[in-house]
Amino acid sequence: MSAARPVLVVLYKDDLPDCMPLIEAAAEVRYVRAAELATAIPGADALLLWDFFSSAVEDVWAHADSLRWIHVAAAGVDKLLFDGLRQSGVVVTNSRGIFDRPIAEFVLGGILAMAKDLPGSLRRQRDGVWEHRETDRIDNANALIVGTGSIGRETARLLRAVGMRIEGVGRTARTNDADFGTVHASADIESVVGEHDYVVLIAPLTDATRGLVDASVLAAMKPSARLINVGRGELVHEGALADALSQGVIAGAALDVFSTEPLPATSPLWRLENVLISAHLSGDAAGWLERLSALFADNFGRYTAGAELLNVVDKELGFVPGG
Amino acid sequence: MSAARPVLVVLYKDDLPDCMPLIEAAAEVRYVRAAELATAIPGADALLLWDFFSSAVEDVWAHADSLRWIHVAAAGVDKLLFDGLRQSGVVVTNSRGIFDRPIAEFVLGGILAMAKDLPGSLRRQRDGVWEHRETDRIDNANALIVGTGSIGRETARLLRAVGMRIEGVGRTARTNDADFGTVHASADIESVVGEHDYVVLIAPLTDATRGLVDASVLAAMKPSARLINVGRGELVHEGALADALSQGVIAGAALDVFSTEPLPATSPLWRLENVLISAHLSGDAAGWLERLSALFADNFGRYTAGAELLNVVDKELGFVPGG
Repeated sequence: MSAARPVLVVLYKDDLPDCMPLIEAAAEVRYVRAAELATAIPGADALLLWDFFSSAVEDVWAHADSLRWIHVAAAGVDKLLFDGLRQSGVVVTNSRGIFDRPIAEFVLGGILAMAKDLPGSLRRQRDGVWEHRETDRIDNANALIVGTGSIGRETARLLRAVGMRIEGVGRTARTNDADFGTVHASADIESVVGEHDYVVLIAPLTDATRGLVDASVLAAMKPSARLINVGRGELVHEGALADALSQGVIAGAALDVFSTEPLPATSPLWRLENVLISAHLSGDAAGWLERLSALFADNFGRYTAGAELLNVVDKELGFVPGG
Repeated sequence: MSAARPVLVVLYKDDLPDCMPLIEAAAEVRYVRAAELATAIPGADALLLWDFFSSAVEDVWAHADSLRWIHVAAAGVDKLLFDGLRQSGVVVTNSRGIFDRPIAEFVLGGILAMAKDLPGSLRRQRDGVWEHRETDRIDNANALIVGTGSIGRETARLLRAVGMRIEGVGRTARTNDADFGTVHASADIESVVGEHDYVVLIAPLTDATRGLVDASVLAAMKPSARLINVGRGELVHEGALADALSQGVIAGAALDVFSTEPLPATSPLWRLENVLISAHLSGDAAGWLERLSALFADNFGRYTAGAELLNVVDKELGFVPGG
């Protein structure tokens, strides 16, 4: 810790984190929106991306003359990372952990909604139609979870707790994983996806995962299978997905993330009856902003104390490695 | 077992159970619909209510001159029971067990749908509206399960498995119940219901449970609480429930059963945005008819062998007691 008060830039859009009074006692804080970032960043030691969807950092990179640390109030850092940052000594930390349980619950909710045809019941309710149907059971249903980070692991544990059979897809194949049992290598996804009733995408977006689910992978799924995407829209070829859903190649999808957000009005996904669309909210359960704020405050205390930071992102991999 | 082949009447509506070829090898079988029951019942030893919503038995009771056993392809026997049957020596068995897991899954699906505002996402999807909202978490949420039979127990176990805090409501108060921990007496429901985020109705319909959830009980619930009814419509005062839901006394409901089914077009429940209506299908998951058929075949084998029957209903209580 330097004797001088560190300079922190907080990039925000609407509200500020709860913890700021505490932080202001220990730092000079500059609150800015994206357009003002270029003038605020010179001389700054640390940057909090509270407006976590912003990709403004790359634009002002030339002005970041003393930056040492960027903390992101999100799990995914794909919008932030660029070559200049990767090659620099600037440490990037994220908000790993905060979204694990809410997203796991959201995935289970999506699976149950499709298994029990809740959208079909709501459609009939709107039309005043009483129609009995059979539903699906989820006990012993197979789910493939693509992404073995902390959110994928929490999801695996929750789906196992309700009696589903789980396998994972990760960078490298392995067996006897504590949460997944078997983990398949992402390169092999096409050959394993046909065994599963539900395919859950929760991987970070990296060069290795971009477009992982393409037309061939979709074609290899069971016609009765459903896709859940709570990771990033670009994990899937969105056009191929819309085709697969409209042609019955797969049975349904619950999509919380999209290549372009908000999802454009022209997207055919809006109008497919077997698609459940939500507005990138799966991790944002009551208390999330308070938790994000508390995690930043914890990390800021570590920063000023010169201690080890939590959730340091491997900038080459594009996520926090391990467990 | 008598030397003569027993006479079995099968009351059905559309399809017959799979097991009938097997049964026909051992019995004289008369297949009838409700209107023909009066002419078929004389001389019958056993009656299978495959059309399990029929209440035709009471009408033909005077003709049931040699009936010894009625098996119902359902869990609830409220539509069947009447004083003449209760006072007779005729044994009633039901299909306890078949619906446990599907209904437990349906309850969890309903809870998650409401926690994650899935109906709100579907409404926005229909209108092409992208709108971020915060959702609720269900870990550590409190659920009160009214009904401690086999379906209630399976539901308790499933909700506990996903981290919810469970209590039960049953005939008699007790503690240290294996599935519920604390069970409150139904007479005390009004004083305990205010502690809970979700109230799940899964009790059999009896004189003790009819109208259990009335305007006072609804008023004692949290304004943020939701009601799930997968038991019988008559467990709730339906008019008071519609009022509570439209006036914000409680936050929402997932209703699979109603006082009159199909739910009449005039019911205000159809049009409430915070209500999720389904067509009495929560227990009817793929394979249910095969399982109902197999259970009857098992019990029929026991009947012809003179062995103890499975799932004998206590006709005074109105359900299969124990466990």
